[in-house]
Amino acid sequence: MSTPQEPTRQEPTRQEPPAPRPRARTFGLSFGAWPTGPDNAITDVPGVRVGHVTIWHGDHAAGEPVARTGVTAIVPGDLADLFAEPMAAGTAVLNGAGELTGSVELREWGTLETPIVLTSTSAVGRAYDAVVDAMFAAGADEVVIPVVGECDDSWLDAMLRRWVTVDHVREALATAATGPVAEGVVGAGAGMVTMGHKAGIGTASRVIEGLGTVGVLLLCNFGSTRDLRIGGMHVGEVLHEERTVPAAPTLDSGRSSSCLGVVVTDIPLDARQLERVARRIGLGLARTGSVAHHGSGDIFCAVSTTNRQPRHATGLRTLQVLGDGSLNDVFEAVVDASEEAVIDALFVADTVTGVDGHVVPGLPVARALDLLRR
Amino acid sequence: MSTPQEPTRQEPTRQEPPAPRPRARTFGLSFGAWPTGPDNAITDVPGVRVGHVTIWHGDHAAGEPVARTGVTAIVPGDLADLFAEPMAAGTAVLNGAGELTGSVELREWGTLETPIVLTSTSAVGRAYDAVVDAMFAAGADEVVIPVVGECDDSWLDAMLRRWVTVDHVREALATAATGPVAEGVVGAGAGMVTMGHKAGIGTASRVIEGLGTVGVLLLCNFGSTRDLRIGGMHVGEVLHEERTVPAAPTLDSGRSSSCLGVVVTDIPLDARQLERVARRIGLGLARTGSVAHHGSGDIFCAVSTTNRQPRHATGLRTLQVLGDGSLNDVFEAVVDASEEAVIDALFVADTVTGVDGHVVPGLPVARALDLLRR
Amino acid sequence: MSTPQEPTRQEPTRQEPPAPRPRARTFGLSFGAWPTGPDNAITDVPGVRVGHVTIWHGDHAAGEPVARTGVTAIVPGDLADLFAEPMAAGTAVLNGAGELTGSVELREWGTLETPIVLTSTSAVGRAYDAVVDAMFAAGADEVVIPVVGECDDSWLDAMLRRWVTVDHVREALATAATGPVAEGVVGAGAGMVTMGHKAGIGTASRVIEGLGTVGVLLLCNFGSTRDLRIGGMHVGEVLHEERTVPAAPTLDSGRSSSCLGVVVTDIPLDARQLERVARRIGLGLARTGSVAHHGSGDIFCAVSTTNRQPRHATGLRTLQVLGDGSLNDVFEAVVDASEEAVIDALFVADTVTGVDGHVVPGLPVARALDLLRR
Amino acid sequence: MSTPQEPTRQEPTRQEPPAPRPRARTFGLSFGAWPTGPDNAITDVPGVRVGHVTIWHGDHAAGEPVARTGVTAIVPGDLADLFAEPMAAGTAVLNGAGELTGSVELREWGTLETPIVLTSTSAVGRAYDAVVDAMFAAGADEVVIPVVGECDDSWLDAMLRRWVTVDHVREALATAATGPVAEGVVGAGAGMVTMGHKAGIGTASRVIEGLGTVGVLLLCNFGSTRDLRIGGMHVGEVLHEERTVPAAPTLDSGRSSSCLGVVVTDIPLDARQLERVARRIGLGLARTGSVAHHGSGDIFCAVSTTNRQPRHATGLRTLQVLGDGSLNDVFEAVVDASEEAVIDALFVADTVTGVDGHVVPGLPVARALDLLRR
Repeated sequence: MSTPQEPTRQEPTRQEPPAPRPRARTFGLSFGAWPTGPDNAITDVPGVRVGHVTIWHGDHAAGEPVARTGVTAIVPGDLADLFAEPMAAGTAVLNGAGELTGSVELREWGTLETPIVLTSTSAVGRAYDAVVDAMFAAGADEVVIPVVGECDDSWLDAMLRRWVTVDHVREALATAATGPVAEGVVGAGAGMVTMGHKAGIGTASRVIEGLGTVGVLLLCNFGSTRDLRIGGMHVGEVLHEERTVPAAPTLDSGRSSSCLGVVVTDIPLDARQLERVARRIGLGLARTGSVAHHGSGDIFCAVSTTNRQPRHATGLRTLQVLGDGSLNDVFEAVVDASEEAVIDALFVADTVTGVDGHVVPGLPVARALDLLRR
Repeated sequence: MSTPQEPTRQEPTRQEPPAPRPRARTFGLSFGAWPTGPDNAITDVPGVRVGHVTIWHGDHAAGEPVARTGVTAIVPGDLADLFAEPMAAGTAVLNGAGELTGSVELREWGTLETPIVLTSTSAVGRAYDAVVDAMFAAGADEVVIPVVGECDDSWLDAMLRRWVTVDHVREALATAATGPVAEGVVGAGAGMVTMGHKAGIGTASRVIEGLGTVGVLLLCNFGSTRDLRIGGMHVGEVLHEERTVPAAPTLDSGRSSSCLGVVVTDIPLDARQLERVARRIGLGLARTGSVAHHGSGDIFCAVSTTNRQPRHATGLRTLQVLGDGSLNDVFEAVVDASEEAVIDALFVADTVTGVDGHVVPGLPVARALDLLRR
Repeated sequence: MSTPQEPTRQEPTRQEPPAPRPRARTFGLSFGAWPTGPDNAITDVPGVRVGHVTIWHGDHAAGEPVARTGVTAIVPGDLADLFAEPMAAGTAVLNGAGELTGSVELREWGTLETPIVLTSTSAVGRAYDAVVDAMFAAGADEVVIPVVGECDDSWLDAMLRRWVTVDHVREALATAATGPVAEGVVGAGAGMVTMGHKAGIGTASRVIEGLGTVGVLLLCNFGSTRDLRIGGMHVGEVLHEERTVPAAPTLDSGRSSSCLGVVVTDIPLDARQLERVARRIGLGLARTGSVAHHGSGDIFCAVSTTNRQPRHATGLRTLQVLGDGSLNDVFEAVVDASEEAVIDALFVADTVTGVDGHVVPGLPVARALDLLRR
Repeated sequence: MSTPQEPTRQEPTRQEPPAPRPRARTFGLSFGAWPTGPDNAITDVPGVRVGHVTIWHGDHAAGEPVARTGVTAIVPGDLADLFAEPMAAGTAVLNGAGELTGSVELREWGTLETPIVLTSTSAVGRAYDAVVDAMFAAGADEVVIPVVGECDDSWLDAMLRRWVTVDHVREALATAATGPVAEGVVGAGAGMVTMGHKAGIGTASRVIEGLGTVGVLLLCNFGSTRDLRIGGMHVGEVLHEERTVPAAPTLDSGRSSSCLGVVVTDIPLDARQLERVARRIGLGLARTGSVAHHGSGDIFCAVSTTNRQPRHATGLRTLQVLGDGSLNDVFEAVVDASEEAVIDALFVADTVTGVDGHVVPGLPVARALDLLRR
């Protein structure tokens, strides 16, 4: 069985995705004052599991159809429990040119009752379908409205082939595990591009002593090369001028871009607070240079694993909720972790060649660090 | 000191507002299955007080400037306590061509921290100012953002005279009392018109055994004559054809109309639930024939007097909240009470002559009942 | 090829759905002052087509698995054109316990770029997938985010069997036609229940002379028996007491209910106006007795077939838009047509026996008319 | 008569506000690639005027009551015209712990029909009242719902004294002028604090060739010292450690903070697009270090001076609107200008001593530039 470290890949695999490169912290970068959790990943929140399935095959040069896509599942608890006792949740939209199914219900009921699946835009229906299956298999005895988010990986992936199947999604759910989370060119991140460079999955966590852990996972696929800021430094302009591979016109115009973001925490928050928390992911993106392009699906959700309520609970029930006066710590943690997740996705993801021979270079890490040092 | 039954009036009062007529239930009308509270008023919710100040003077025929306006204050608890420990609250907008100050903060924090004042559109600033004074006088030691709603009474009132002063608002706050609430041509309702007939303040309550009381107060100033439905019956068409006073063109076109609605309850609800509760007022309006005209400020808020949290509370706090599975009873109670409040405002309000000799007839109650009986 | 009058059915069809009964207007009922279009259907708007696929087989008494479900597609224009030049659109939520995929993007961009498909809750993913296929087949060369809505038909349909396939959805799209639209127990309406009686699809239209046509199509699956109002009359209480088939407990508690509603018009409206138009569907539901139950997905969208803009249009473009001062006519038309669509769905749909032997009676039309006449 | 350069001050003025210091561009700082307008101010948009009234007197050391407050009016056109033919407008909320009156109507109608007035929180009612007067004086013949925003200046100003009067607001409206706009400690900015340093009014503009001008004006009163980023550089931590005046506890905790932001442009945008534009101000704030504190009223609006529609316009009207595909340029311009406006407010505002002897230091510009150079 695959682990998040070694994401499952579909056979025949002519090519492997590029091996992950070191994370940003390896080079001494840090993001804010809060300490990270042990794996600096969304899985640092107790009970949270992540599963990736990467679909990767074909070589354009060899005349083969090219797959650079996949699925990432965030499973914040046991499926049967999740349906029987949903978690408090909220959503926020910075720019809504994308999809997060289930968000209407999530907003109304303030709860999450399924895993959250991220994938390629065209695969949303299949992911939806697979989650319905999984929930029924787990014993759900009412209709299920899954939460599925997407970004557009069609610059690298042969979109019209529609590689992702219901089985891939099932596998991502089934193999979701705790522990370190693979980043970059993996799972739903396989074909994603950020600020003109290869990116994809990024994750980070923060520990707020006395309160709990905040975990963030982003599917990064946004922005133009020139906009990139690392640690606030405008490295994008220089990298844009020095780039040897021409930037993709539709990507650099921000025409097809997105960042789907998920926060999970074990801090007891209610739906109203979680909506506010979700909104802060956008501020982390802004720190990396995002202006939230017109074509971007910058859509976020936030979930608390605590204070779960039975479906259709009646009568009075007792909850513990964090006072709003303590929210600033959570907000800071989310903004910092979101900024880090984007930069991590860029550091980890190496160069990829995809459909039609499109090449998306990995971030030139040495050069970027050099610019930062000046 | 005035009581809600005998609303305060400003001297010199050349004319008195018309005496209130009997409420709709007097004639055997009822609205839904839930029992009413003792006064069938928003004040049936423990701790809730209402104060009206009616500003009424001048006779157009005598060449005098005409005042047909006023202020209504809903005070859900002691002012100092309200600021120190705000109540959970939510808002909803059916058609937003109006004003409810404080609604941005109410939405973000999910709390109410001042009384709710209703008045004429042009008087919103003064009401806002008066509430700031009152809150500072009550010991508020931070900035205050009052909740003030309005409807447009300029068909009957000499709007440009701007009769309402800060003192009127202070008086409405100071004289707010528990017990029966005057309806119709009183307080903020003095100059309001609904479905072509004189209306204004309407209130009703419902008791949900085992949970608590739901109170509704509406400032009714909406709709066209032909649209009126009583108990679902389309009496408006007939009344429109039989009317002897021509309908006001701007009113009957729905150009300047509004319904500002407030729910208060002692059922423990949180902000998310209260937003949902507030939304149901609109369904009550629809039952009376409203299509929510383009020019209508159909803006609602809902407040729970329970589960109050200290301002800027930090750390974990324990709450009791109703399970969502019990909300349908609350929703029904709100829709029914809102429908009744509109009809009550119409039954109670008698004919008024105002600025420029505009005459707004009271609902022809006997004729309406006759139509209902067929 | 099937027509809307004779909806396609999957073989083997052991049972046929009950034949449609006469529409409400047959009995002299009318709803508001605006005239209807020629077919009193959403297809009265030029270019709008509707396709139904009904999935109906199995007899519980015979020990067979029971299918009472289906798909309804609303196709407001040629698919390739729709993607190349999306239509202005808006959405509104009265109670969000449901799904309308694509609604985040629809809100952000203010456009509709795919057909709107309605189906059973568990089939949303497959409908989504089928629309992606159809759009790619029509030449869409960018990612597609379909608009798919749902209601829960699991009281009559063996939900866990998941009868609806991608092929059914394709067929509904392929067979969509202009002309009269089948109502009641057809397409997505096959298994739906409203106010304790069998319902499903309802449609109506209004012609506003000089402006254009407003068409409404609703998937009706909401409310409790006691709440039913026809033409405003509270017939529900009597029908509830007289009913011989016991009401379904989960349905009568409003636990699993919904009304998915669509407006299409050829009046030139922009996205902001269409959001306002969509909101009025809820007022039509209120007239029929809805209080928008906690478990209800009362989710609406509105589309204008005019003023289409090329995808990613740049530079200045010229639009014709209706002045807001003319919106009240459109609002009235939508409220009236929505009320009629609900009542029509009830009049047309006859009794159905479904999974586990559940029987949902057709509205006792003669008795209801008798009550109305009194 | 005062000019924006020499803001009006109330007599007796014991102290003058500190003289404005040079703007950020003086030191070679720049923000993004778009060129500024001639005055790098919101008044670069044709027809836009700004008026400041600063209320400044009293010395705490001398035992005097201390005023450090004021009013800033943004007047995007002639008042009578504005009411007769409102401008397209949109709003957005990043964190809603504040007030922007008129925002409910602005959202519903998508128009601005009054000037926008910014002031101290407690003065909102008076500003509202003054704008009503001004609009009636300009000939408005229907009810008026002004747009008034606020921030909390009570760390420096004796809030309970309530210095701002209706007359101050009238004066700000009457003296509004085109040309350069005073920044920093002026008008509504007199008592405001940002990132632990004195700030207040900031403005900037961008010219998008072929489309028009985008102007931004912010009332800056947010954030903690440690969070400050200039040009992306984290200078806040160092400045926090080096500061000689202790940071205000309530300010540095973000308990009472806000940023009220206004965009005006002559690019033809509609209400939906302007809502999206307004949202981008928040991304500019994020670049300067904001995490949008719990207590912050980060509330924005955006206005286009073009495509004005007559109030209650009926029938079809022709508009020119920018294609969404050109919005990214506008978004970039707004984010860049917002970032600059914050930094400008900090550069220009010098140290102020206020109520209770509270001292808020001006940004140590030389030290900050030194840190940036490293």
